[in-house]
Amino acid sequence: MTMKDEYFMKQALKEAQTAFDGGEVPVGAVVVVDGKIIARGYNMTEKLNDPTAHAEMIALTSAFSHVGAKYLPDATLYVTVEPCLMCAGAIYWSKLNRIVWGADDEKNGHQRITHSNSPFHQKATVTTGVLKEECAKLMKDFFAAKR
Amino acid sequence: MTMKDEYFMKQALKEAQTAFDGGEVPVGAVVVVDGKIIARGYNMTEKLNDPTAHAEMIALTSAFSHVGAKYLPDATLYVTVEPCLMCAGAIYWSKLNRIVWGADDEKNGHQRITHSNSPFHQKATVTTGVLKEECAKLMKDFFAAKR
Repeated sequence: MTMKDEYFMKQALKEAQTAFDGGEVPVGAVVVVDGKIIARGYNMTEKLNDPTAHAEMIALTSAFSHVGAKYLPDATLYVTVEPCLMCAGAIYWSKLNRIVWGADDEKNGHQRITHSNSPFHQKATVTTGVLKEECAKLMKDFFAAKR
Repeated sequence: MTMKDEYFMKQALKEAQTAFDGGEVPVGAVVVVDGKIIARGYNMTEKLNDPTAHAEMIALTSAFSHVGAKYLPDATLYVTVEPCLMCAGAIYWSKLNRIVWGADDEKNGHQRITHSNSPFHQKATVTTGVLKEECAKLMKDFFAAKR
């Protein structure tokens, strides 16, 4: 974990806040290449009536479009909450280099199913726990408000 | 496996053929509710420059749009080849009722990672091997032509 990781996780948190403000489960993501954010995304499952419109899927699709290529071997994905199985699979296909998430997701995180085998590309490195409390708090606040 | 399963798998194979003709990895899918096809999709990863544009993702997103809801509890997904991890996750989120595929995918199929735990929704039933040979043949022909 580096200062840069915290900086980019804060940017992902901004995206998550936008989701929160829109009544969406508050997850946000940014894709970074060479120290620059090339794509952003926040959860839009309610807005789009599509349970696959997760922050990571939106940020990745935007990144492919930006780069004009279907692989992102030099990119890092920052996401506030542990990716689910679908997003872990999408990250695998993107061949991105590094995955950083904040809070674990005990209910829907991909680790729940893929405990032993990593679902990510074999060349990818994983960092977790960046701004963990802030990332988790947004989720807690959201679901607390729903109850 | 029923005659209906074969009928709908043939429709999925038509989609896969369209992918094949377009130089895409030949996978096709249809979503069926009450005996009617409500959505179709074929692999468009090359065309869209997006490695997440799998047949299942496209068919599911089209189905959500058609139904105007983000869950498909009464739907069956027919897909020519075993879903990958990403698509298995998307199928989970869609809460669809039944998954039917033709050929297993020894390399990229979700079963490769999720051997013990099913990635699908707990209420979902799974049927495999429908028109298995035809489904596998299209894949073999495609990759044979690439070599």
